[in-house]
Amino acid sequence: MSIRIGIAGYGNLGRGVELAIQKNPDMELAGIFTRRNPADVKPVTADAKVYPLQEAEKYKDQVDVMILCGGSATDLPEQTPQLAQWFNVIDSFDTHAKIPEHFANVDAACRKAGHLGVISVGWDPGLFSLNRLYAESILTDGGTYTFWGRGVSQGHSDAIRRVPGVKRAIQYTVPVEAAMEAVRAGKNPELTTRQKHLRECYVVAEEGADKEAIREAIVTMPNYFSDYDTTVTFMEEDAFLKEHNTMPHGGFVMRSGVTGEGTHQMIEYSLKLGSNPEFTASVLVAYARAVSRLKAEGAVGAKTVFDIAPAYLSPLSGEELRSHML
Amino acid sequence: MSIRIGIAGYGNLGRGVELAIQKNPDMELAGIFTRRNPADVKPVTADAKVYPLQEAEKYKDQVDVMILCGGSATDLPEQTPQLAQWFNVIDSFDTHAKIPEHFANVDAACRKAGHLGVISVGWDPGLFSLNRLYAESILTDGGTYTFWGRGVSQGHSDAIRRVPGVKRAIQYTVPVEAAMEAVRAGKNPELTTRQKHLRECYVVAEEGADKEAIREAIVTMPNYFSDYDTTVTFMEEDAFLKEHNTMPHGGFVMRSGVTGEGTHQMIEYSLKLGSNPEFTASVLVAYARAVSRLKAEGAVGAKTVFDIAPAYLSPLSGEELRSHML
Repeated sequence: MSIRIGIAGYGNLGRGVELAIQKNPDMELAGIFTRRNPADVKPVTADAKVYPLQEAEKYKDQVDVMILCGGSATDLPEQTPQLAQWFNVIDSFDTHAKIPEHFANVDAACRKAGHLGVISVGWDPGLFSLNRLYAESILTDGGTYTFWGRGVSQGHSDAIRRVPGVKRAIQYTVPVEAAMEAVRAGKNPELTTRQKHLRECYVVAEEGADKEAIREAIVTMPNYFSDYDTTVTFMEEDAFLKEHNTMPHGGFVMRSGVTGEGTHQMIEYSLKLGSNPEFTASVLVAYARAVSRLKAEGAVGAKTVFDIAPAYLSPLSGEELRSHML
Repeated sequence: MSIRIGIAGYGNLGRGVELAIQKNPDMELAGIFTRRNPADVKPVTADAKVYPLQEAEKYKDQVDVMILCGGSATDLPEQTPQLAQWFNVIDSFDTHAKIPEHFANVDAACRKAGHLGVISVGWDPGLFSLNRLYAESILTDGGTYTFWGRGVSQGHSDAIRRVPGVKRAIQYTVPVEAAMEAVRAGKNPELTTRQKHLRECYVVAEEGADKEAIREAIVTMPNYFSDYDTTVTFMEEDAFLKEHNTMPHGGFVMRSGVTGEGTHQMIEYSLKLGSNPEFTASVLVAYARAVSRLKAEGAVGAKTVFDIAPAYLSPLSGEELRSHML
């Protein structure tokens, strides 16, 4: 029997989940739940059912795992505990500082209803977190470094778009190659914010706007850009729309450590993603399989990627995994 | 209370485990068990206890986890099930084709005695296996590539040393950069054995030996070298002993996949190890922590790295992990 997946929220991430379900023969799309008028949502799958999110409870027996695809700022802190009343849930909550609070809320809601919830699934938090954990548990004497990019930061792109005179903008976070090489060489460098990442901005200015003023407003913007080396490149709108219409991202987790009497050991994990939301969606769907199985074994409450044995992610049996993948 | 570790077999790997225990404050060395005369074993730790392996049963209440450090060819198939009668066990069994059989034997022995056993822990099998599993579960549509090196292959080094006229020899397995670049570029190449790895041999010849005959015997040796591009470099003994006295290794696991409508996604994991046995030992010790905890929760039978949730490897609590590492 297929695992029946619900999608709560249909933006880039929700669409990515819909596409990822198609790549997993043991899954099926039970329905898309939206706050918009369902008629305004155009799913990729022609026969996909779209329901009002506020009526989700009615479908509680038709969904094995609800994947929440809203934003971490305001959607998920409210929606994940709420939907946990009726469903097993999984989200990609990524506000690192608020994870303990969100975990406690989802755990309480899940335990009350007898459901299972997995939070903060994706690549960071998610796969990068797993790699930090494995690497630090193995190389106990060492330093961990996370670099992000080259990739689009939505938050930084939004910040640029709020600058007067900016019509369109996108920001790429770029890891500094020299810093990564120093880590790989076992130098355990102390790196400042500026030494770790560059910020590349591409901007379409409004007609007649003062480009130098825009540039100055961007590079001096506190929190977002003032601590970084930032480049601002102005473009024509046609070229911008053609060259900057995808959402690549990625990054690196490195653990540089020492064993025995000073032997250098290096672990490196990296992602190069053509589409950040499609990849995050693929991670969510693999963990939805784990949720379905763990629930069948009787698990309840909240978990994270740290608490889930890797075998639960795969459609293969233990025997198959040991024979072919170990 | 510390986790009390026993070491069965004291070669490079056993010595690595002894060193790794020193890097983990929640562990202590309960004793080294050897088939040799205990007086002939010289541990790194001055006060380490060395016992005859054949008397291991006497110490069954003094060891929480026995780490087996023998070889996969003849030691572990016999020793791991045997010691599972008296101890929770963990090994680095790496004969991929015989893993199902070894798993069944260890599982039966563990269940009979009420112990827990984890087999095939290290980096391949081990961390590389984990990365293959995570990556294939997430990017279901794609290809997986494992490259090894640059590093010392004991089996190939031994094979060269059996060639008449060879006094000393070492062999490095080297991944072919062009093949790795083709994978990274998303070309999903079909790679032959020769296209994936080179073999570099460094040889000290006996005085008066025919070097050209040695070279020819190496490069044409079936199974070991004939399917590869192999280089043979002759050296003076002094230089050899100075330049080739460590055991580096490492490698790469790459998953090149596609999401949605043809979006390329790339996951890459790599290790650059100054000492293969010291690193493998560090992985074993982290999993020994997991064995101790899972046993306390009542787990019995055989497991692999696929069956163990990552959190069990870390000395940190769930709260600490969620706050600092997620």
